[in-house]
Amino acid sequence: MQFEQAIPVQWLAEFIGAELRGDTEQLATGINEIHMVTPGDISFVDFEKYYDKCLNSAATIIIINKDVECPAGKTLLVCKDPFDAYIKIVKRFRPFEPATKMISDSAVIGEGTHIQPGVFVGNHVRIGKDCLIHPNVTIYDHTIIGDNVVIHSGTVIGADAFYFKRYKARDTQYEKMVSCGRVVLEDDVEIGACCTVDRGVSGDTVIGKGTKLDNHIQVGHDTVVGKNCLFASQVGVAGVAHIEDEVILWGQVGVNKDLTIGKGAIILAQSGVPSSVDGGKVYFGSPVEEAKTKMKELAWIKRLPEIWQKLNNTK
Amino acid sequence: MQFEQAIPVQWLAEFIGAELRGDTEQLATGINEIHMVTPGDISFVDFEKYYDKCLNSAATIIIINKDVECPAGKTLLVCKDPFDAYIKIVKRFRPFEPATKMISDSAVIGEGTHIQPGVFVGNHVRIGKDCLIHPNVTIYDHTIIGDNVVIHSGTVIGADAFYFKRYKARDTQYEKMVSCGRVVLEDDVEIGACCTVDRGVSGDTVIGKGTKLDNHIQVGHDTVVGKNCLFASQVGVAGVAHIEDEVILWGQVGVNKDLTIGKGAIILAQSGVPSSVDGGKVYFGSPVEEAKTKMKELAWIKRLPEIWQKLNNTK
Amino acid sequence: MQFEQAIPVQWLAEFIGAELRGDTEQLATGINEIHMVTPGDISFVDFEKYYDKCLNSAATIIIINKDVECPAGKTLLVCKDPFDAYIKIVKRFRPFEPATKMISDSAVIGEGTHIQPGVFVGNHVRIGKDCLIHPNVTIYDHTIIGDNVVIHSGTVIGADAFYFKRYKARDTQYEKMVSCGRVVLEDDVEIGACCTVDRGVSGDTVIGKGTKLDNHIQVGHDTVVGKNCLFASQVGVAGVAHIEDEVILWGQVGVNKDLTIGKGAIILAQSGVPSSVDGGKVYFGSPVEEAKTKMKELAWIKRLPEIWQKLNNTK
Repeated sequence: MQFEQAIPVQWLAEFIGAELRGDTEQLATGINEIHMVTPGDISFVDFEKYYDKCLNSAATIIIINKDVECPAGKTLLVCKDPFDAYIKIVKRFRPFEPATKMISDSAVIGEGTHIQPGVFVGNHVRIGKDCLIHPNVTIYDHTIIGDNVVIHSGTVIGADAFYFKRYKARDTQYEKMVSCGRVVLEDDVEIGACCTVDRGVSGDTVIGKGTKLDNHIQVGHDTVVGKNCLFASQVGVAGVAHIEDEVILWGQVGVNKDLTIGKGAIILAQSGVPSSVDGGKVYFGSPVEEAKTKMKELAWIKRLPEIWQKLNNTK
Repeated sequence: MQFEQAIPVQWLAEFIGAELRGDTEQLATGINEIHMVTPGDISFVDFEKYYDKCLNSAATIIIINKDVECPAGKTLLVCKDPFDAYIKIVKRFRPFEPATKMISDSAVIGEGTHIQPGVFVGNHVRIGKDCLIHPNVTIYDHTIIGDNVVIHSGTVIGADAFYFKRYKARDTQYEKMVSCGRVVLEDDVEIGACCTVDRGVSGDTVIGKGTKLDNHIQVGHDTVVGKNCLFASQVGVAGVAHIEDEVILWGQVGVNKDLTIGKGAIILAQSGVPSSVDGGKVYFGSPVEEAKTKMKELAWIKRLPEIWQKLNNTK
Repeated sequence: MQFEQAIPVQWLAEFIGAELRGDTEQLATGINEIHMVTPGDISFVDFEKYYDKCLNSAATIIIINKDVECPAGKTLLVCKDPFDAYIKIVKRFRPFEPATKMISDSAVIGEGTHIQPGVFVGNHVRIGKDCLIHPNVTIYDHTIIGDNVVIHSGTVIGADAFYFKRYKARDTQYEKMVSCGRVVLEDDVEIGACCTVDRGVSGDTVIGKGTKLDNHIQVGHDTVVGKNCLFASQVGVAGVAHIEDEVILWGQVGVNKDLTIGKGAIILAQSGVPSSVDGGKVYFGSPVEEAKTKMKELAWIKRLPEIWQKLNNTK
């Protein structure tokens, strides 16, 4: 998330109750998770094993729970609970804004776009031209929708990331990583009925131009789907997946987080994709293999009685 | 789809910019995909390998992209892009009609039927007697619902078929096959929460009398489900499937398109049905086999270490 | 279900047209399915093989279709169709109450709770403090929600149990077991978008304190989920399951009815759990096995060509 205006680190230090180290005149221009940071961003780290990664990242301002040496050109905000401090800043600059009516006054809706009854359009949503939003769709705050987009009934765009942390040392409940990211649906996207596309934790979940989703599909937070993909019904894609252009996922396929599906790959129905796969090939199984390999395996399994018979005859 | 009144082919030729061949006085009474046509229907064909199938079908009026010989008693409408012409006619005779309120004035709702708050009932919908439609259900235009039907919240009846075509010669985007078909829910059907039943592309998607669906179920376009079936939660049935009477699908089963599941078949949980299966049997696996065959296979797999051991001892 | 006030058995006998046997002055304090009964309850039995179980249960008043000997301290209500009589009583004491607006007058909503537009809150619902109910959620009658609960859009809490009976002797249609149970969401629960949690048939479906559900999740009737569980997207849990504390179910896992998943168990994505599993272990596959066992099996399958080769060399 980028801030609407830059925030002095001295204000931040006071706001979260942290000690300032390094450059005390710095301005923060955004706040992001460590894997999404760009220069000017605030990020946080609370496990010693990730200190180096965070201190060497593009983040300019780092909330940290140990008074380590500050790298040149950066600012450290040293405090006891960096996670809590991060959440406090997120909530301050992207607060929950209760809605009082189905279409918010701050939504911008393009010419030729038709919004059917029962649709909720949240605060700061932007919808392009010539879209058709069917009844009972929900579009959460800050969602960005391009031109010629169709969304079918019951679908929910921009719900929170499913992202909970548990600090065993602290207590036994899960704590929520509050989302401040968005969903971006590019031009010519069509989304079926009863789908969910969650917003990014701090960045964007993106559905690329011309991609078509059938019904009951889940797209997790921070996932980026390319152009002209087709997902059949009941596909589930976890968070932070990267699905390149022209990928086809057949019905009930499951895709794990933190992976890449290469351009033009086809995943057959009910398969499970645990890690990255190359483009241009057809895959099947849970976990997936190339479909022809998997089919051979299934044929080999059917030969087991024959193998057993032969083994007994061999004796 | 049948037209409300017959359309002269000369009007059609002018409307889509086509050359007329054969009987130029013919009247079109409907428009359908090739596998749904009946006499009086318009259909279209744009691939040479399907010409014969279409010319020999029951269709009376054929939109085609080559000036071939016209079969006796038929009319050809010759034009460059038959797909575009077909879509243009569909949109002209089943236009999208924007809704201005949750229950359309043209809907007909039977005595004793109760519609809870937040339900959308589209144009030309007919609902029978003594039904109960729970809150936040969406019923798209032209849906037909019988008597004693129950629909639970969040369910979407009659969303568009998931049917996109891609003409590589033309451009790289998917083009939508616009649906003009309907959903028909027969008497005594109960549909759970967050289900989707898509309408037919040009014909009807049907759920037969007395059939009960649990939650999160997908039924694709043009699928016909028989009487007294039970589908457990998260079942997905693709388009153009034929599921005969008294079939039971357990949780998370996936069913492919263009197949038949015979009367009384039982498909165990998480199975995938890639092609037609006979009635009266129990199936399991992805792809499914008869459950007892599949169970034997699973047992054989467990014996692999034993087989390996024996093989080594045999040497 | 407990009655608001006790019902004399003589009134019941007249209401359902049954013969009274045993204690004719008894008062009924509730009505429950046989596996949920406590003293004071009405229950029913209509198959001879279950007579003993029902007569020896905690139920005080038993609707039965044979004039058997009445156990001491109990009352029998003898009639032809105990199932119909049970349903008649349920409908009399928990009638369907049509709603006329999105938030019922009888709902009690705690301080600090925010209900977004398009949410339906049924009759007699109780919602605690500091909850956030996102747009287009549906909460059926009698649901109980604790403090600090978040429910995302499109979710349906408290729809009917998917429970149908078929009496072949009587006719060929399924008959509905009418639900009179509830859903109870304890404090600090978060439920994603497009989820369904069905109410109990006569008891409660419970989601324990601190448990977090992702999107598109199904929780069946009378299932009890413990504290601090995590369910990933598209998980389906059938009815009457018992999931202990701190269980993690990854995406698209299916869980059968009438089983227990032990504390802290982890079920990997797309697995199917057909029967009870111990806590503290990791499982995979459909049907599930311990993950390490399953992984070995998958490795053995890949060795089949090698086994075949070796077998041929051995000859």
